[in-house]
Amino acid sequence: MGILVVGSVAFDSIETPFGVAEDVLGGSATYFSTSASYFTDVSLVAVVGSDFPEEHEDFLRSRNIDLRGLSRSSGDTFRWKGRYGYDLNEAHTLETRLNVFESFRPSIPPEYADAEYLFLANIDPDLQMEVLKQVRNPRVVASDTMNFWISCKPESLKKVIGKVDILIINEAEARQLAREPNLVKAARSILSLGVGTLIIKRGEYGVLMFSRSSIFAAPAYPLENVFDPTGAGDTFAGGFMGYLANTGNISDAGIRQAIIFGSVMASFTVEDFSLNRLKSLDYRQIEERFRSLKAMTHFEGIPEPE
Amino acid sequence: MGILVVGSVAFDSIETPFGVAEDVLGGSATYFSTSASYFTDVSLVAVVGSDFPEEHEDFLRSRNIDLRGLSRSSGDTFRWKGRYGYDLNEAHTLETRLNVFESFRPSIPPEYADAEYLFLANIDPDLQMEVLKQVRNPRVVASDTMNFWISCKPESLKKVIGKVDILIINEAEARQLAREPNLVKAARSILSLGVGTLIIKRGEYGVLMFSRSSIFAAPAYPLENVFDPTGAGDTFAGGFMGYLANTGNISDAGIRQAIIFGSVMASFTVEDFSLNRLKSLDYRQIEERFRSLKAMTHFEGIPEPE
Repeated sequence: MGILVVGSVAFDSIETPFGVAEDVLGGSATYFSTSASYFTDVSLVAVVGSDFPEEHEDFLRSRNIDLRGLSRSSGDTFRWKGRYGYDLNEAHTLETRLNVFESFRPSIPPEYADAEYLFLANIDPDLQMEVLKQVRNPRVVASDTMNFWISCKPESLKKVIGKVDILIINEAEARQLAREPNLVKAARSILSLGVGTLIIKRGEYGVLMFSRSSIFAAPAYPLENVFDPTGAGDTFAGGFMGYLANTGNISDAGIRQAIIFGSVMASFTVEDFSLNRLKSLDYRQIEERFRSLKAMTHFEGIPEPE
Repeated sequence: MGILVVGSVAFDSIETPFGVAEDVLGGSATYFSTSASYFTDVSLVAVVGSDFPEEHEDFLRSRNIDLRGLSRSSGDTFRWKGRYGYDLNEAHTLETRLNVFESFRPSIPPEYADAEYLFLANIDPDLQMEVLKQVRNPRVVASDTMNFWISCKPESLKKVIGKVDILIINEAEARQLAREPNLVKAARSILSLGVGTLIIKRGEYGVLMFSRSSIFAAPAYPLENVFDPTGAGDTFAGGFMGYLANTGNISDAGIRQAIIFGSVMASFTVEDFSLNRLKSLDYRQIEERFRSLKAMTHFEGIPEPE
């Protein structure tokens, strides 16, 4: 089977210099699974409240996302309210209401326990660990986290990082986790926790990947219209894992291509609020941007020394 | 002949989280010409005061830099004092004493007037224009500028930009010049001023190049030790122009390679204060980092659509 993602489904309210959106569909598992669905089958484990409308479930189902792991609790769905200035790289949280997400204890349906690709979106590292125990023998596990868990549960987090294959975090989180301002040194220190591949997201500046034997630098797709960066990181992870699961190629070369597909998916997400741009996307458009990024990064080598 | 650069020679006093340096050799023309000297012959036009020691001239001469255009005025050499925090991308100016640089009126020695490659470092755009009039028929002219000239002499600056082939500025300057927060839109607006190629420097995030037909994204070389970013931009421009002049290849492919050589040169400069790292550099080390950047940015393409 394809990918299993455990994370949040939420309502987001967003202000950017270009507009506002109220209570629109959001959440890490939502962005991740919609993005990954362009490449492979996805199953989702998350929780929503009794206020979660049928139309959103219908949309996710229309993307062929398996919702048997989406539980419904009485109470309200997780709500996040944020604002971005012209520097769209940084979100300012205005309000977080965890609601039903506060008591989320992910229980993996037995039919998901053989997932080959697992993404642990940004949730409590203790819960990430519980998920790891419930998935029998995944081929690739990737995880995300955030500053809150780095500050509050560093030991739990480090245990999880030691057990996953790929950690996908942003630049500030990498520096905070390693307590090191230099990113190359920070990366080395994080790899020493036991994770094989570290992917550092740098927003509009692209992505840096570090493994024990390789460094890969990928630019972000240069965009003329960035409306709302919300979900870009989870969309990146979805495209990345989706492509890995689709090809089964987890070599360095495969990971590099997957990073480019992830970047392409994120470039679409930020062009509109919520998942609006992902809803109208066509696989040919994805491949077109992949080829553009290939052309934009190409330069001729020089002869090898004699 | 090779390259002519018109700019500043200065004493810098620098504080970074990693140390301090007092009255060390600096200035745009100094960094540019030293960097370019690894690729081609360079002639320099600048002014120093009576306090400028022989040893610095000896160093520049040892790099084969033609100093017939270095004039000596009575008074003190230009002095700049700056501080960097852990975010080494931004310099905080503590003090600027223009000294002899204040009355600098660049006069191009007749033997330089046939220069094929000309770099107008960051000086008053009216002076940049005067230099342009004195150089007969350059093949490639590149220029730099700064926020001060964008604010104070926008019309003069735009005239110069309309006459040069390549503009090399940083990200904030591009946004300020175009009065546009989106970098792709800003780039398009700057190209409409008449410049053929725009190179936007983004510090540790690398470089974006825009021309009418091409976009190129190059990462910075990931460094474990960044001591002092002073001079990185001029060192970049020196490596870039030096390689262009060396090969004579000003096609899109040639410009892309030159951008990588510029990035490599800048990566060395920031590893130590002043020009210290450039002084001990070996051309094989430059080529080695070029090849590393090639490997770090490579990913396999996907098949073309049928």
